[in-house]
Amino acid sequence: MTNDTRTVAAWLADLGSEKPAPGGGAAAALLVATGAALVEMVTNLTIGKPRYAASEQVMQEVRARAADIRGDAQALADADEAAFTAVVEAYRIPREDPGRSEAIQAATAAAARPPLATAELAAEVVALAGRICEGANVNVLSDVAVAASSARAALESAAINVEINVGALKDAGVADALSQDLARHMTAVADADEIIAAVRSALSGS
Amino acid sequence: MTNDTRTVAAWLADLGSEKPAPGGGAAAALLVATGAALVEMVTNLTIGKPRYAASEQVMQEVRARAADIRGDAQALADADEAAFTAVVEAYRIPREDPGRSEAIQAATAAAARPPLATAELAAEVVALAGRICEGANVNVLSDVAVAASSARAALESAAINVEINVGALKDAGVADALSQDLARHMTAVADADEIIAAVRSALSGS
Repeated sequence: MTNDTRTVAAWLADLGSEKPAPGGGAAAALLVATGAALVEMVTNLTIGKPRYAASEQVMQEVRARAADIRGDAQALADADEAAFTAVVEAYRIPREDPGRSEAIQAATAAAARPPLATAELAAEVVALAGRICEGANVNVLSDVAVAASSARAALESAAINVEINVGALKDAGVADALSQDLARHMTAVADADEIIAAVRSALSGS
Repeated sequence: MTNDTRTVAAWLADLGSEKPAPGGGAAAALLVATGAALVEMVTNLTIGKPRYAASEQVMQEVRARAADIRGDAQALADADEAAFTAVVEAYRIPREDPGRSEAIQAATAAAARPPLATAELAAEVVALAGRICEGANVNVLSDVAVAASSARAALESAAINVEINVGALKDAGVADALSQDLARHMTAVADADEIIAAVRSALSGS
């Protein structure tokens, strides 16, 4: 069942259940969607207000991209659930089957893709939050920090999930390529911390 | 509309919309629910497995509490939405109304309560994650870290929302009491970082 039809309560119940999927990977993808939605809300509450006319162009651009990421991240939550289920199924292939090992490796490499894509989108949400830190409606500036915090958690969570899959890979070339891709996105953790600190400082008037 | 009836997609769309609520406060509450659900999943996938018999009692206790928190945090998301809407409505009282200032102060003090309760539950999710770090099914150990990361983001986000409301309060006594309550929960941020580091270290075999 996809998140288009599951209620929030049902999704959380599924997450908490003994079913292995949805798990941390899908949760991370929804953390990105949450961050993207908050960025989008801030732009929506800034656009069209004369006081913030100077940032209108940036807000328009950021709103469009955040809305796309919100949708893409939701799709990733579903993709992660499917990829994780495929790994579980590969491990269920009988041990005497000559194709078992290859099937596990292929499923594992494929299962690293959704968390990697989650990390990439999370890093982009952090960048979008950074772009609207100045010029956002001050009444919802706190939501920029919440967006960055949510995306930061998604990054951290996605990284752990990529690392697990990379650790289970026998092909060092594939593993290294995935690790390098991941490292490129992880610099956004420090950026998120900076955004959160800047917002708190601005809100406390210091 | 509550989260019992809204789909995940509809909730995210509402979050991203120009409606001021749901906003960062409700999002933070759902980050707690996500963390609690992941803790619950880990206990569900550990309980009853002979290999983890030694941790059975702890897992049972943690599961029961995590399930309660999952429900309570969802209710808090709805409560935050309602409290925030009440503040917006208080500000709409005509300026010439002698009761306006008092209504705003009362609504603002009340609006600090859901984020404070969110911070309290988030700190408890971190503590639960800490309790199951050892003794959890290693196949889902990563989800303990994702739970801690999600709760950490909730703590950070709730703190910002409490601080904003505290900053708008004229009664220093009420403001100080809220700030002190908050500070008590915020020590869990460092605990979450420790849990995440411990899980990553365990998973990388170092």
